[in-house]
Amino acid sequence: MSAPTHFNDHEVDHSAAISVEALNTSNVTLSGVRRAGDVTEAVGRRNFLHAGPPIEISDITGPMRGALIGGLIFEGEAADEQAAAAIIDSGKLTISPCHHAGGVGAMAGIITPSMPVVVAKCCGRTTFSALNEGTGGAVRYGSFNAETLVRLHWITDVMAPALDAAIQAAEPIDLVTLVAEGLRRGDDCHNRLAGTTAALLCLLAPELTRRVSREDAAATMSVMAGNPHFALPFTISMGKALAMSAANVPGSPVVTAMAANGREFGIRVSGTGDRWFTAPSPIGTPLLMPGLTLDDVNPTMGDSMIAETVGFGAFAMSAAPAIMSFVGGTASQGIEIVEEMRLITVATSSRFLLPNEDHRGTPLGIDVHRVASSGIAPVINNGLAHREMGRGRAGAGVTRVPIECFIAASEALATGVRCS
Amino acid sequence: MSAPTHFNDHEVDHSAAISVEALNTSNVTLSGVRRAGDVTEAVGRRNFLHAGPPIEISDITGPMRGALIGGLIFEGEAADEQAAAAIIDSGKLTISPCHHAGGVGAMAGIITPSMPVVVAKCCGRTTFSALNEGTGGAVRYGSFNAETLVRLHWITDVMAPALDAAIQAAEPIDLVTLVAEGLRRGDDCHNRLAGTTAALLCLLAPELTRRVSREDAAATMSVMAGNPHFALPFTISMGKALAMSAANVPGSPVVTAMAANGREFGIRVSGTGDRWFTAPSPIGTPLLMPGLTLDDVNPTMGDSMIAETVGFGAFAMSAAPAIMSFVGGTASQGIEIVEEMRLITVATSSRFLLPNEDHRGTPLGIDVHRVASSGIAPVINNGLAHREMGRGRAGAGVTRVPIECFIAASEALATGVRCS
Repeated sequence: MSAPTHFNDHEVDHSAAISVEALNTSNVTLSGVRRAGDVTEAVGRRNFLHAGPPIEISDITGPMRGALIGGLIFEGEAADEQAAAAIIDSGKLTISPCHHAGGVGAMAGIITPSMPVVVAKCCGRTTFSALNEGTGGAVRYGSFNAETLVRLHWITDVMAPALDAAIQAAEPIDLVTLVAEGLRRGDDCHNRLAGTTAALLCLLAPELTRRVSREDAAATMSVMAGNPHFALPFTISMGKALAMSAANVPGSPVVTAMAANGREFGIRVSGTGDRWFTAPSPIGTPLLMPGLTLDDVNPTMGDSMIAETVGFGAFAMSAAPAIMSFVGGTASQGIEIVEEMRLITVATSSRFLLPNEDHRGTPLGIDVHRVASSGIAPVINNGLAHREMGRGRAGAGVTRVPIECFIAASEALATGVRCS
Repeated sequence: MSAPTHFNDHEVDHSAAISVEALNTSNVTLSGVRRAGDVTEAVGRRNFLHAGPPIEISDITGPMRGALIGGLIFEGEAADEQAAAAIIDSGKLTISPCHHAGGVGAMAGIITPSMPVVVAKCCGRTTFSALNEGTGGAVRYGSFNAETLVRLHWITDVMAPALDAAIQAAEPIDLVTLVAEGLRRGDDCHNRLAGTTAALLCLLAPELTRRVSREDAAATMSVMAGNPHFALPFTISMGKALAMSAANVPGSPVVTAMAANGREFGIRVSGTGDRWFTAPSPIGTPLLMPGLTLDDVNPTMGDSMIAETVGFGAFAMSAAPAIMSFVGGTASQGIEIVEEMRLITVATSSRFLLPNEDHRGTPLGIDVHRVASSGIAPVINNGLAHREMGRGRAGAGVTRVPIECFIAASEALATGVRCS
């Protein structure tokens, strides 16, 4: 972990180097699985978190509305859809970005006080992301039917404490190493996490068995093993931790967040602090679920593209050739994506390595000036929700994000906007 | 699993087609982990199994002698090295190939009656391979020190019954599917099995927790998770089962075994039944452990090249780019190996798929006629032992096996040698 950072250009800007050095060397440890309300003061009975840049509650799209309804019913604040809708439409529920609270949320990213979150630690800071509910209906995709909520209650009441007990008893888990090993096991750690999830289970299984009742441990392991996306909140809470370590460096053009709320896509940049640069959220050309058309697809939504922000996900696409068919592409396209991303990044990771390039590192640290001058916008490897709440996943794809945000950030930096 | 077999040539020989169809469609289920003596009558107090083609006990090399000593001490037949050596040198210990008993043994492949073996089932037949002891000193590499034997006793007394209890309680485990998923997780399933081992743990962990005492279950899972080669006997007992299903087809030029005893390498071919065609065992150009030279390396040894015989291992090398540095190569060499092996195989697997070729199958079914006419001998992805017993692993490499065996088998088939 002590290899020097390899910069892609001899004349790298000093501020960019500071940001990327942080991305490349910060250590992130798994801290536990806790109730969101115990981790952040940003959630409460009438304060939920959401994915992406800020959005007015009146502007949210179908799946995020579905997720809010699910969250209100889950919290016992509403008995049913109608009651939940009334709370939302009354203006008494406020929502704010996960990113503003130091968290990240996949898809709709709705986090309510009682939801269990994976907690990561880095340099004294804490980041978090909600435990992944699994395939089928999930609140993060805007589902709120009985089955979805029963599962979420079980995750909250049984699985989360079991996981936390095992994490506390196990040797400290280095989440950067988990992702690095995932890349060697055919995952990009954003949209394919089968190998990473299994690796995580290997780390936790012995202490789950020792610390938790037999039936709860067995059920927890069955659910983990049956959900190939289980490791996602572990990898993206790590990503958020790395991004925070790179943030707020005066003048630095390194991107510290990419996120979307289903209507707008936005980025944050190290040298411009907490400011969001936004543009309409893209849909791209995803591989759709059978019977659906592009009209059924909600524009991109979610904070999980923090993966690409810190050098994995689509930026490690060639590590995961098996995912390409899932997102409608070919293995060689995965290699091309990584190659293209090298043109807009500051450095090469010395920790996230690509086996197919003889362990060369992934492209690391998106530089808004390079994006602006090259005309190459980053790509992400993302899932897409159905426009209508309760309809779940509509597809998945490799999506080009809007270049306008990067150009605007580049200009803002050039004109001397100070770090807020 | 019902996709038609894709043949590499329009005019494929009918007998070859029968063999390859069997390789490509037979189902292999994990049956359990049992005492070798309960699985085969070929082992006894003075009858042990070994890897490779038949060999006189006076001709064995250092690591196999070390493994026999380890086996005798483990069985309580000898108190120490001297007593064990006396039994070996008295001529009262007989050894025979694992393959003759329907089994396969990694490296020295010594299997004694009390050793626990993984048992696979296919079409009513049973195959087996000894549980993998892990890294460090291991009987399969010719070690027999106290630490090695204490571990083997623990594996026998605690781990094996725990695993068997879990296997009996779990849903039936399809070992072909396990390997197919391993190839998607960056393994070749011969020399890299980290992802496959983790996948296996995911399948067994819930029932291990339910059926076994808390401490034994936890220790079993810790040892599994800590041994990235743990899945090897599961993948190669499956390989042996597939190979048996393809055997004894009159006239068929398809290879059904490649194996080495540390002195000779040998093959069996479907149309020539149980006959071995042998040549001196190769050393190749392995990547050596620090401080060793080629003079320290014992010639190739082991039955685990049944992997390549049935379409994985080096024949799926491009699925496991991370292994190439372990064996001294590059990722692109892995791709070239697979491409070359297509020239000497009858078909393309419809079950073992290569993510980096957009899920094209691996080369399947080595045809001795094609080897003879092309001059291309198969390659294997193997570990190598130190020449001196007790010194363990010396290195690992991608090794070209001797073409003479294939030429001799091709000629034998052409001159009408009947299936024995």
